[in-house]
Amino acid sequence: MSIENPLILVTNDDGITAPGILTLIETAKKITNNIVVVAPDKPQSGMGHAITMNSMLRIVPAPIEGVKAFSCSGTPVDCVKIAMAKVLESKPDLIISGINHGSNSSINVIYSGTMSAAVEGAIEGIPSIGFSLCDHSIDADFIPATAYIERIIKFALANPMKKHTCWNVNFPALTSDLIRGIKVCRQANAVWEEEFDERHDPSGKPYYWLSGKFVNHEPNNEDTDEWALANGFVSIVPVQYDVTAYKSIDQLKELENEG
Amino acid sequence: MSIENPLILVTNDDGITAPGILTLIETAKKITNNIVVVAPDKPQSGMGHAITMNSMLRIVPAPIEGVKAFSCSGTPVDCVKIAMAKVLESKPDLIISGINHGSNSSINVIYSGTMSAAVEGAIEGIPSIGFSLCDHSIDADFIPATAYIERIIKFALANPMKKHTCWNVNFPALTSDLIRGIKVCRQANAVWEEEFDERHDPSGKPYYWLSGKFVNHEPNNEDTDEWALANGFVSIVPVQYDVTAYKSIDQLKELENEG
Repeated sequence: MSIENPLILVTNDDGITAPGILTLIETAKKITNNIVVVAPDKPQSGMGHAITMNSMLRIVPAPIEGVKAFSCSGTPVDCVKIAMAKVLESKPDLIISGINHGSNSSINVIYSGTMSAAVEGAIEGIPSIGFSLCDHSIDADFIPATAYIERIIKFALANPMKKHTCWNVNFPALTSDLIRGIKVCRQANAVWEEEFDERHDPSGKPYYWLSGKFVNHEPNNEDTDEWALANGFVSIVPVQYDVTAYKSIDQLKELENEG
Repeated sequence: MSIENPLILVTNDDGITAPGILTLIETAKKITNNIVVVAPDKPQSGMGHAITMNSMLRIVPAPIEGVKAFSCSGTPVDCVKIAMAKVLESKPDLIISGINHGSNSSINVIYSGTMSAAVEGAIEGIPSIGFSLCDHSIDADFIPATAYIERIIKFALANPMKKHTCWNVNFPALTSDLIRGIKVCRQANAVWEEEFDERHDPSGKPYYWLSGKFVNHEPNNEDTDEWALANGFVSIVPVQYDVTAYKSIDQLKELENEG
C-alpha cells in the first residue's frame, strides 16, 4: 500500500548547500517528483531542538534543479515549522533530514539539528527520518548510503510509522562492499566528556572552544547503535519524544504525601 | 542520608539577571552556602539542547551576593558543560535550573533551554531538576513556588535520583493557598500548532514571526502534567534522555531481512 508520487519534505542542519542534502534530494527523486526542500541558509549543527523566538525568520527561494526549494534563516526545527505553515500546500507524506555530515548515533540524537527536525516532524504527526553518515568531512562519500536510503524511504512509505515516533538512521563510513546490512538498535548510553580549549584574545582575556571526547559506556552491547556502526552495519533507532522516565514515577510518589 | 552543605550548581535559560534565577538562588541558600551560578548572559529561551560549536564562549564573573556566579555567552547546555569543565572544582551534588518564566510542561520539555540544562546534567551523571512557573511575565510571583522548591531539593538530596534521569517541575500561577500540593505525572501529549505572523519590511520583502497555539491532545487524562497544572497542582515529571522508542523496534526488524 505504498503512496503514489508522495510529497516529501527535505531538510538538514548542515545548510542547503551541503553535499549531504543534495545527495538526499537526488535519492528521493528516484521515488517521487513531488519534493519540497526547506533547509537552513547556514550551518546549524548542534542546534538541538532550538526554535527562533526572539528574532524574525526569512525564507528565500533556492535554485536546486527539479525541486521546489527554499533556504530559511532559522534552525532545522524552524525549517520544518515554517515549511508546514507557509510553504507546503498539504501535509507531506514523509519528512527526511540529512544526510548529516557526521554521526547522530547514541547521545548525539539529543544535540543534533538533523534529528531534531525529524523529531519535530513526529510531533506534528508526519512520518520522519533523519539520515547521518559517520564522516564529518565536506567531501565524505555519501554514495554507499543511497541504496539503503532508497530502501528505507520505500519501507517507511509502505509501512505506517508508529505515531509519535521517527527514525534515526546512521551509516558507517565504509564502501558499499563492506557494509553488512541494516541493524535495528537502541540508543547506546554514552557521553561527551567536555574538554574546553582555553585561549586568550589579544588583550589577554580568556575564551573557550567546546571540544570533547565521546565515551561509549557500553561498547560491548550488541543491541546498541554504536555497536552496529562499529561493526559495519547501518543502524536504525526508532525515536520518541515522550521523555517521561516511567520507571522513576514510583520513587517520586513519596513527594505527593509529604509536607 | 542528606548531604551536608551540598554543592549546588544553578543555571537557567532566561539569563542571569532574570527574577526567576534570583529567586532560585535565594531558595537554595536556605539549604547550603555552597552555591555556584553559571547562567546565560542573555535570554536563551527555546534553545532546546543547542550547544555552541561554531563560535567561542566567554565566561565573566557576575555580582550576585553570597554566591560564586558567572555569566556565559552560550546556551543553557553550554553553561552546564563549561561549569563542569572550567568553573567547579568538584562534581556538584545537584544542578537546578530556572525558575523559568513560563511553562515547561508537556511537549515544552523538548524546546526548553531550562530543561535541556537539567537533561545535560543527567547525561553527565548529576542529579538535576528544572523548575518553571506557568507565568511568562517579568514580574511573575515566584514566592508561592519557593516552599515547594525547598522541599523538592531536600528530597532530591536525601533520595538518590535514578541514573540517566532528571525532574521537570512546573508550578501553576496561583497563590500559595490555592496550590493543592505536588502531583507526579507523565508528559502530556500535546503540540504547538504553528502560526507564523507574516509581515513586510520597508522594501516589501516578507518576514515571519513564529507564534503558535498550544493544543493538548489529552486534556482529560489525570496522570498528565497538563491536567495537574490545570487543576492547581505542582507537577513533577521524571525525564530521561534515552529516546529509543522500544515498542517500535519489532516493526522495524523486517528491514534487517530485506534487500
